[in-house]
Amino acid sequence: MKDRLPRKLAAILYADVAGYSRLTGEDEDATHRTLTEYLDLISSTIESHGGKVMHYAGDAVLAKFEAVVDAMSAAVAIQDELKTRNEDVPDSRKVQFRIGVNLGDVIEDRGDIYGDGVNIAARLESLAKPGGICISDAVRSAVGKMLARASP
Amino acid sequence: MKDRLPRKLAAILYADVAGYSRLTGEDEDATHRTLTEYLDLISSTIESHGGKVMHYAGDAVLAKFEAVVDAMSAAVAIQDELKTRNEDVPDSRKVQFRIGVNLGDVIEDRGDIYGDGVNIAARLESLAKPGGICISDAVRSAVGKMLARASP
Repeated sequence: MKDRLPRKLAAILYADVAGYSRLTGEDEDATHRTLTEYLDLISSTIESHGGKVMHYAGDAVLAKFEAVVDAMSAAVAIQDELKTRNEDVPDSRKVQFRIGVNLGDVIEDRGDIYGDGVNIAARLESLAKPGGICISDAVRSAVGKMLARASP
Repeated sequence: MKDRLPRKLAAILYADVAGYSRLTGEDEDATHRTLTEYLDLISSTIESHGGKVMHYAGDAVLAKFEAVVDAMSAAVAIQDELKTRNEDVPDSRKVQFRIGVNLGDVIEDRGDIYGDGVNIAARLESLAKPGGICISDAVRSAVGKMLARASP
């Protein structure tokens, strides 16, 4: 029998752009310029909150944190800053991210993370509103009262 | 006015696992082991056909080729080999990839490719059957009669 693959507990943040295909189809250049600007912002916010970007995939970012509170703070900081940057942009051209945050064991391999905990973060993300954050019960329990202060 | 971002014509191959969340939920270790084995196979097949992997994202791979015929040959070779490896695996545990192949201009930036052509490859992929390949009209026109020989 094969050894069980090692696991490590992580807070998992998954983000991607709401309506990316539509935005790209309407204006490929403008969408790409805004996307790269926002991905830079997201990446630096993740790092300044102690997280690590595991991969980019088009309009998507996957990151892990060693503390749930850091993942939540980063998610809130990202959405706050993007809201400000999007304020003067017409609704149809706003590049808005959805964010999912989950907490669970992940398989670390080849510089990326895998497993159910990651897939659930991506599913939570798809449930978030544009500009919003969707978290799992595990995250809610872990951060407790901090949410009342931090939720956008 | 900003300069138009440079474009380059590419054949775009996008692949990911059909039912990955279900497979992972049922057996995280076995799914991850098979996934990494198959991703290695896919990566080496892409390279041996003159393609380049642009990124991995969990169970997904994005690659570009400078010739459509190379992208199609790689896609067919991948599905042929995976079919063989899956032969003795029970249906519920088969790790099968869907593949989408598109042809179009892409924006190359930061070691990845972006734009409508990439998004369409991902949409085609979602329309493919597990173990199958879904191609755009542009690809069909470009490869012409080669398809009759190469389709699995």
